Amino acid sequence: MQKAKIGLIGLAVMGANLARNLASKNVPVLVFNRTAAKTDEFMKNFGSDPCLQAAYSLEELVQNLERPRKIILMIQAGAPVDAMLDTLTPLLEKGDIVIDGGNSYFEDTRRRSAKLAELGMEFVGMGVSGGEEGALHGPSLMPGCTEKAYVQLEPMLQAISAKAGENGKEPCVTYIGTDGAGHYVKMVHNGIEYADMQLIADVYTIMRQVLCMEPEEMAKVWDEWNKGELSSYLVEITANILKKKDGETGKAMVDVILDVAKQKGTGRWTSMSALELGVATPTITEAVFARNMSTYKEERTALEKVYAELPEVLEAAACCRKETFTAEEKAQLLEDLRNTLYAAKICAYAQGFNLLGTASETYGWNLQMDQISKIWRNGCIIRARFLDDVSESFAKQAGMKNLLFSDFFAEALKKARAGWGRVVALAAERGVSVVALSSALSYFDAYRTASGNANVLQAQRDYFGAHTYQRVDKEGTFHTEWME
Amino acid sequence: MQKAKIGLIGLAVMGANLARNLASKNVPVLVFNRTAAKTDEFMKNFGSDPCLQAAYSLEELVQNLERPRKIILMIQAGAPVDAMLDTLTPLLEKGDIVIDGGNSYFEDTRRRSAKLAELGMEFVGMGVSGGEEGALHGPSLMPGCTEKAYVQLEPMLQAISAKAGENGKEPCVTYIGTDGAGHYVKMVHNGIEYADMQLIADVYTIMRQVLCMEPEEMAKVWDEWNKGELSSYLVEITANILKKKDGETGKAMVDVILDVAKQKGTGRWTSMSALELGVATPTITEAVFARNMSTYKEERTALEKVYAELPEVLEAAACCRKETFTAEEKAQLLEDLRNTLYAAKICAYAQGFNLLGTASETYGWNLQMDQISKIWRNGCIIRARFLDDVSESFAKQAGMKNLLFSDFFAEALKKARAGWGRVVALAAERGVSVVALSSALSYFDAYRTASGNANVLQAQRDYFGAHTYQRVDKEGTFHTEWME
Repeated sequence: MQKAKIGLIGLAVMGANLARNLASKNVPVLVFNRTAAKTDEFMKNFGSDPCLQAAYSLEELVQNLERPRKIILMIQAGAPVDAMLDTLTPLLEKGDIVIDGGNSYFEDTRRRSAKLAELGMEFVGMGVSGGEEGALHGPSLMPGCTEKAYVQLEPMLQAISAKAGENGKEPCVTYIGTDGAGHYVKMVHNGIEYADMQLIADVYTIMRQVLCMEPEEMAKVWDEWNKGELSSYLVEITANILKKKDGETGKAMVDVILDVAKQKGTGRWTSMSALELGVATPTITEAVFARNMSTYKEERTALEKVYAELPEVLEAAACCRKETFTAEEKAQLLEDLRNTLYAAKICAYAQGFNLLGTASETYGWNLQMDQISKIWRNGCIIRARFLDDVSESFAKQAGMKNLLFSDFFAEALKKARAGWGRVVALAAERGVSVVALSSALSYFDAYRTASGNANVLQAQRDYFGAHTYQRVDKEGTFHTEWME
Repeated sequence: MQKAKIGLIGLAVMGANLARNLASKNVPVLVFNRTAAKTDEFMKNFGSDPCLQAAYSLEELVQNLERPRKIILMIQAGAPVDAMLDTLTPLLEKGDIVIDGGNSYFEDTRRRSAKLAELGMEFVGMGVSGGEEGALHGPSLMPGCTEKAYVQLEPMLQAISAKAGENGKEPCVTYIGTDGAGHYVKMVHNGIEYADMQLIADVYTIMRQVLCMEPEEMAKVWDEWNKGELSSYLVEITANILKKKDGETGKAMVDVILDVAKQKGTGRWTSMSALELGVATPTITEAVFARNMSTYKEERTALEKVYAELPEVLEAAACCRKETFTAEEKAQLLEDLRNTLYAAKICAYAQGFNLLGTASETYGWNLQMDQISKIWRNGCIIRARFLDDVSESFAKQAGMKNLLFSDFFAEALKKARAGWGRVVALAAERGVSVVALSSALSYFDAYRTASGNANVLQAQRDYFGAHTYQRVDKEGTFHTEWME
């Protein structure tokens, strides 16, 4: 048996697809799975490819890899990764590279990096985005490791990654930073994804509840939007989803799917890290909470009965639903919605990149925002034309503290603001919850306001706890005897 | 020297005041401080009280306490508590009780409880609310420990606690639950406090930016509101704050205080725990993020210039500021604001109690919401008439899953909803950020809506990740081949 270039452990769908992707780029892969039956099945289906070979023990795997060895783990995040490292590292040598391609928590990755470094080995925490399809045909890859390890992996990673750019040849992989940087960036990618999805769902709510549009009609609008500045994978699939009929009932699929959303944890982790680091990510966090709220289906159903009568609000909503908007009014509201979605999206990304900036300082990663936005342009769920502009903004305006400072996006936000206000106001008056659109608006308005209302908080804190305050007119720390 | 009933370690202001409070109730206290000079100063000032005596070593302290010993730690949270326990426990005996009265993280308290239990000792994690004044004259006390330990402490705690109720004799202390329960409840109290404060600040913003009211005129409104359903310590001090003039400039104090708010961490912890447990606490969390945003003063100032031109929005705002509201319009808006503040407050508390409910199940605490709201009626920062109604609602409607189900509060919310919508709409159109008021509105509207928009999220998740979904019309888990 010729020695393989890389080993891959874990043949669940993500691992299997990544192995096939590697083989399709002529990288000889040696695969291993704890359950031999799974290995057999994989080899039966794909083993005709000479680049795919199987090992039936970790010893066999390790013995048949080129040195320094490169082994990618595609196993369940958490304790299984630690258990695998405990078993695997005694078989390895100094200089060998272990890559964790799962959705590991970045603090775990930092800990494991330190542990393997002590053994003279390299540990790579690599974010892999794009789901099953991405793994097979080209994911966005976010490796966190030493530069030394990255250099050895780069050709392989570039080969299997998604491609972007005008020529369609720029690989969606770059060196992210040391230890947990790759998994952290992937985590924030997912947090942004939560916000992106909730923003779309909020716009759907207005189309449905206020404009009373049928899914098919909405789909046309989303298809149209997908040609402009909103062009993105999520907008594209939203249009497709809205077109899809249920085979069984003939109804629109969105009308038969239950409004209870699941989550796997990366959105929550993003919000928790933001709170820990003191970075405001309200729109991402509201999107996480919206998923929590969705699971209270029983309570929501009961409360709808409790609040069946809401003077003015529900009448207005009902009236609004019944009334026929003139073509002009409807066109205006749809245009407002398009601008609102774009503006709110900018704010969600501003929050995500702001968090990355603070994390970069905190953990010493030296993250390059223009590069990170570049590798998100394809392969991953949030891929979008928009990310070209994000990348360009960060490249042009070096050291930019927040995306709201971008000359390019500032123009878009200015143009959008009035319509955005109309949309949020309409929702508030008609009793329709559009939590992500409205949270993003509050973020934007608070952020562009030099003098906010925290003076009131500081006065209260000094009043009840002598916590002191600063003044607007001179330096220093002050306390007032309020009750005198 | 006669043996003291309780020892107290740590004579910073909270500890000193709590010792004086105990002594004032004829409880003999033996105090100790790491720095003897601080003990000397304390004794010089207050030692004429025969109930206050000093020890100058931990050995001396331990030898001169009644058994089983009761020692309360009023020292800095975190590592110092562990260090003190390491030094102290070898001097103690089985059955002795150590009480941590600091703002410790509840997971630390759980760990310490287990550790002392192994030694046969009792550890009490006690939330103490009310700041310096509360500690001296009567705090709200939230002890988490075994019932056995609580029974031994109860008379003393009841004596020093704040009192509430119609007769003014009901002690603001009750048994909370085991191990970390007391510190957890105190943490959520603080989270609610963050929301309460931000809601008030948001209302101030509308008064200031839209109604163009001067602080003195606002103060009259807050004084008036303090007579009704909003009657509370925070509303009362807000009125006083708005009346206060700066001695130096003669300006209103709120106009000389910088709008940059500090935070100590309990609000953040509350939000992180909510995310961890999957409970939606958007208004509390937006209040935490609002404090983070306030610290970006430099960026906000720069962005105000970037966005100096916002077609329609700023003109509307300026126009609004210049226009003289008719007395009737102004009265209507103020009445809307009053209802809005009340309604949003109900939602913030709903979130806090919801979190307590889930924590109670998760950690096995069996928290009694009616009792917890009762002991918050006095002594602590969020004390309010409102909490009588909260307590009554929980007592009347046993097993109530969320405060929004309360018959009493449902009436208030129904009455408030239309005006609340008008306030949030006005803010959205005029470009004024009222993040807590608007987040609470989204929460209310989402919670009373049987069919939300998470069907769109589930369709997307199934489309890009084959995550499956449930249906509205039958049980089971389904997947669609979207691209067919």
